[in-house]
Amino acid sequence: MARRCLSIVLAAGEGTRMKSARAKVLHEVAGLAMVRHVVAAAAKAGSDRIAVVSGKDSEAVIAAVRKDRQDAEHFVQEERFGTAHAVLAARAAIEVGTDDILVLFADTPLIRPETLARARASLIAGTDICVIGFRPENPSGYGRLLERDGELLAIREDKDASEAEKAIDFCNAGVMALSGEKALAILDQIGNDNAKGEYYLTDAVEIARREGLKVRAIEAEAFEVAGVNNRAELAAVEATWQSLRRRRAMIEEGVTLIDPASVTFSHDTVLGRDVVIEPNVVFGPGVTVGEGAVIHAFSHIVGAKISPEVSVGPFARLREGTVLEEGSKVGNFCETKNARLGEDAKLNHLSYIGDAEIGARTNVGAGTITCNYDGALKHRTVIGADAFIGSDTALVAPVSVGDGAYVGTGSVITEDVPAGALAIARERQVNKDGRGTAIAERNRAAKAQKAIKA
Amino acid sequence: MARRCLSIVLAAGEGTRMKSARAKVLHEVAGLAMVRHVVAAAAKAGSDRIAVVSGKDSEAVIAAVRKDRQDAEHFVQEERFGTAHAVLAARAAIEVGTDDILVLFADTPLIRPETLARARASLIAGTDICVIGFRPENPSGYGRLLERDGELLAIREDKDASEAEKAIDFCNAGVMALSGEKALAILDQIGNDNAKGEYYLTDAVEIARREGLKVRAIEAEAFEVAGVNNRAELAAVEATWQSLRRRRAMIEEGVTLIDPASVTFSHDTVLGRDVVIEPNVVFGPGVTVGEGAVIHAFSHIVGAKISPEVSVGPFARLREGTVLEEGSKVGNFCETKNARLGEDAKLNHLSYIGDAEIGARTNVGAGTITCNYDGALKHRTVIGADAFIGSDTALVAPVSVGDGAYVGTGSVITEDVPAGALAIARERQVNKDGRGTAIAERNRAAKAQKAIKA
Amino acid sequence: MARRCLSIVLAAGEGTRMKSARAKVLHEVAGLAMVRHVVAAAAKAGSDRIAVVSGKDSEAVIAAVRKDRQDAEHFVQEERFGTAHAVLAARAAIEVGTDDILVLFADTPLIRPETLARARASLIAGTDICVIGFRPENPSGYGRLLERDGELLAIREDKDASEAEKAIDFCNAGVMALSGEKALAILDQIGNDNAKGEYYLTDAVEIARREGLKVRAIEAEAFEVAGVNNRAELAAVEATWQSLRRRRAMIEEGVTLIDPASVTFSHDTVLGRDVVIEPNVVFGPGVTVGEGAVIHAFSHIVGAKISPEVSVGPFARLREGTVLEEGSKVGNFCETKNARLGEDAKLNHLSYIGDAEIGARTNVGAGTITCNYDGALKHRTVIGADAFIGSDTALVAPVSVGDGAYVGTGSVITEDVPAGALAIARERQVNKDGRGTAIAERNRAAKAQKAIKA
Repeated sequence: MARRCLSIVLAAGEGTRMKSARAKVLHEVAGLAMVRHVVAAAAKAGSDRIAVVSGKDSEAVIAAVRKDRQDAEHFVQEERFGTAHAVLAARAAIEVGTDDILVLFADTPLIRPETLARARASLIAGTDICVIGFRPENPSGYGRLLERDGELLAIREDKDASEAEKAIDFCNAGVMALSGEKALAILDQIGNDNAKGEYYLTDAVEIARREGLKVRAIEAEAFEVAGVNNRAELAAVEATWQSLRRRRAMIEEGVTLIDPASVTFSHDTVLGRDVVIEPNVVFGPGVTVGEGAVIHAFSHIVGAKISPEVSVGPFARLREGTVLEEGSKVGNFCETKNARLGEDAKLNHLSYIGDAEIGARTNVGAGTITCNYDGALKHRTVIGADAFIGSDTALVAPVSVGDGAYVGTGSVITEDVPAGALAIARERQVNKDGRGTAIAERNRAAKAQKAIKA
Repeated sequence: MARRCLSIVLAAGEGTRMKSARAKVLHEVAGLAMVRHVVAAAAKAGSDRIAVVSGKDSEAVIAAVRKDRQDAEHFVQEERFGTAHAVLAARAAIEVGTDDILVLFADTPLIRPETLARARASLIAGTDICVIGFRPENPSGYGRLLERDGELLAIREDKDASEAEKAIDFCNAGVMALSGEKALAILDQIGNDNAKGEYYLTDAVEIARREGLKVRAIEAEAFEVAGVNNRAELAAVEATWQSLRRRRAMIEEGVTLIDPASVTFSHDTVLGRDVVIEPNVVFGPGVTVGEGAVIHAFSHIVGAKISPEVSVGPFARLREGTVLEEGSKVGNFCETKNARLGEDAKLNHLSYIGDAEIGARTNVGAGTITCNYDGALKHRTVIGADAFIGSDTALVAPVSVGDGAYVGTGSVITEDVPAGALAIARERQVNKDGRGTAIAERNRAAKAQKAIKA
Repeated sequence: MARRCLSIVLAAGEGTRMKSARAKVLHEVAGLAMVRHVVAAAAKAGSDRIAVVSGKDSEAVIAAVRKDRQDAEHFVQEERFGTAHAVLAARAAIEVGTDDILVLFADTPLIRPETLARARASLIAGTDICVIGFRPENPSGYGRLLERDGELLAIREDKDASEAEKAIDFCNAGVMALSGEKALAILDQIGNDNAKGEYYLTDAVEIARREGLKVRAIEAEAFEVAGVNNRAELAAVEATWQSLRRRRAMIEEGVTLIDPASVTFSHDTVLGRDVVIEPNVVFGPGVTVGEGAVIHAFSHIVGAKISPEVSVGPFARLREGTVLEEGSKVGNFCETKNARLGEDAKLNHLSYIGDAEIGARTNVGAGTITCNYDGALKHRTVIGADAFIGSDTALVAPVSVGDGAYVGTGSVITEDVPAGALAIARERQVNKDGRGTAIAERNRAAKAQKAIKA
């Protein structure tokens, strides 16, 4: 039977320095709330149970977590008396019994599952507490990890550290793995006999040592444990996430990024080989890009399935429910929403295609608009294969245009067009000789009059 | 009575390395001419009088300054014989009498008013000259500030410095505060007995010391005194300005910037709490963004008042005179100019709304255009509340659409639409069976013929 | 007679780490295949002959090179046994006879012609082999250049280097110049008696020394010899190229870049003095921008000639064959292709102008579309000077509008409009009182019914 793991995610910090009406851990990195990143890492490291300890905005926080993990347990820390106190808010979850416990912080969204798995592996190898440490550029201010012979002796707060101890650059990241069997006994011994009168999780190390238990530390990379306390730190963590994701695209996935720093990925973007992404592209959630597709500059893409060899943009906006079949093209100043373009279909200029289906090889002219909303409900437009939609056409849904049909430029199509038919709905042109000149003269006079007035 | 302060802004440098037809100090940082930044800092530091000494492009320079300070005094330095000579071009302004004099350079636009205020505070405390220094990364080439017991002894040019003096990293930034009472007596003693035959303001220090006057130096941050001599330095100063502004947004104002480096602010952008700004947004002058508004990627915003909870973009262009009321939305490929959208009004796709008013809750369909220009004059379009403007509609101004009116898709509206009315102006659709197929056949033939020719 | 020079460009590397279906050296920097950059540098350094040694994707590689140099000689290295083996794949080219030989790598696209010229100058001065070296930040792993009295003694591989040799930071860049007369004799002596059984070009140095020939090294800047082995390195080389180009624009050409890092240039972009480029602009190949033109943010420009004092964007897309005459303007959400705008012509909003000519001072209204494609062929639209095209107009090509003509808003123009005429093609507006209110009521009912169902 698989070894059980309970992850306790501490999400109760007030986050006042965020200056936000929203709970800190709901602020997003790569389009996903920070707490969801942490829960995802815990899940990937094999946690069969997730307990969230929240404070402010409790309901919104647990609701966000349950989008991914409906079974997440929820505990509210009404008053805040330190990290150990926060962990013990989840006492009931611990009492259920488990093999491993991971204590995580919801405001360090870059923690890697591999690191958590290594902490668990340490428990499996017989450690009772495994502390995750890191080496910051400047260790000043951090609790130092005092080790001897591979064992962790204590976590020394910066202010209590001797000069020799201050020279240690291996610091406490806060994250901790504990033996599920022994955790409660240790946690219950943590006292609050200190300046702030708070219960510190770091005291668990010395308590465990006193009990003769085995305590070790493992090392995470510094970026993994970077916490977020204000929006500049949020931006810094986002930048790290994006930088790692871009590198993965280039090195592992064979994707060309002409100006990597100008491309913003979402937490779930999927990219095929030989995809080319020009500068200034933003991916929202739910996007898949097939092999060899080209995403031109200034494209904004959300919830879209882009098949191989598709060309998108520049200046394309693909919204939720867009499906582009192989070889199709969405060009500049075009928006699609809940729309499918068949193979080799072309939508090249200044168009809005919503709640629509466009058949293979159909050419949609510039300035085509599907009028999908009548003020009350949304309706569908269905266009067949090999059709030609003339420029500046409005398709008033619900409406269909058959295979091989041809719609004349500037038409407002309100009735279905049969396959192979020509549909047209426009007024005949009239030229009035000399009238343009007359208007120009009138305009000159009007401008002159305005100039006199001014 | 408030202590009087005269700021003398030196703006006569030729700026040949800018390679520009425009005077150097008129090149812009954050959308504002450099000289105006310096004048604004001087004003914030309490200057009741501003004197500008300009050379080339004199009239354009003083005109720019007078946009902010109509009372700015103007002096032309016909020939250029050094910084002291430039200051004395404003002799008449000095002779009027003042308590404090600040000598500023129009090509160091990042000087902070707080720093200038500290220099004035030094004068108030009894100093006769206060020099502003800084610590550059590499002091080589700069004049060193030689201090003893808190007093400034001299400014030693790099070429004249001993090895010990070269080790000093505290350097002259050029900016100086002088006692208004004593300035002229000091300045008139500065000679030109040097290699270039120029009058150097830095000589003021030793002259004052000789007279038994008190001279001190205060320290500015290096970025404040970064000067601009070519366009790469202009870009560097812009980058510093933007970086400071972004940090203020994130840390002090509670604004989320997903990719801070991709957002360009203007000198006067005002941002509310919990505003979210996606990547790639450009703010021109005159923009206010209310609490909780979201500015999506690829938006370009100038002269717009954006109320709380408004959604802008992606791909929105808001121009001068745009007012978006609470809960309204301007979507992709939409441009507004001199236009007001009422509460919860929606302008979602591919539209141009200029010289117009749109009532609360009104929905403007895709591809709507206000035809505000008739070739001579601009005219207004007024749309009431709760109206529905069908897609692909042209509104030929001057024209009005009443409350609750409904305009049919594809209409050209040339006459007023009464409240509650349906307006329609389009031709009936005709379907011609088989004609689409015929056209397709003709097209195939034409393509084949073209292929044969090629 | 000019001294002859043969450049042998090695382009046979497999590039598996690119994870691409395309040959590595065909991946682009600044819009130009890497191998073409190298060939261009060789040509600028005076090579009268170019020999390309390719492996995988041979035909595509030589085809790319021949776009610039139709006379390029092509050699295929069927099996790969080291750099000297690769050079000897071009034995036939060497045997023709030449004065200087340059051995270049197709995956180091930033090599400067000036550096190659210096290597040739060394040959002219009597050197038999001139090795190009560089000083990397971290020399570990590179072959060190062992010099004495200005002569190059050997290239010592990192693994064979003594501690003293490892302290040398002058390293082998791979690029080499050889006397055309002596090259073959040297190359033929290179053996493969080493761990990998390969023929190393670096052995040429010791062989030449043994023969009493003169060998020297010259230094290139590290960026010039940065090689590309994966897409992260490709992006790094692109970033260097762009950074150098931006600096040239700002320092030498007098161009203002508000946010230099956000502007992407092409290998052939030409910029005039006092051009201003706002943030987020992408230049594709073939663009010339005249003095004083302003390129606003979010513009995407390819194959366009932009005259002085033109205004482009924001959100403009200029495609191949666009010519904008002095003082003309292309505004937001406008696309042009194979189109000429006359002096002071205006195209301000939401338009597509393809295969068209627009006369001087003509104003093209918002939402104007040239319907240049009929499903088979492209046709031209010709508009005269001083004309006025009303908004939301479709021009069905082939069609012409004469000088001073006026086209009414919302027209579909299918027939030529004579000079000075007014053309109009739209239906008269009908207002139906109360019908808007009736629709609103029906909509409310429909929404309510939908809400009940949901």
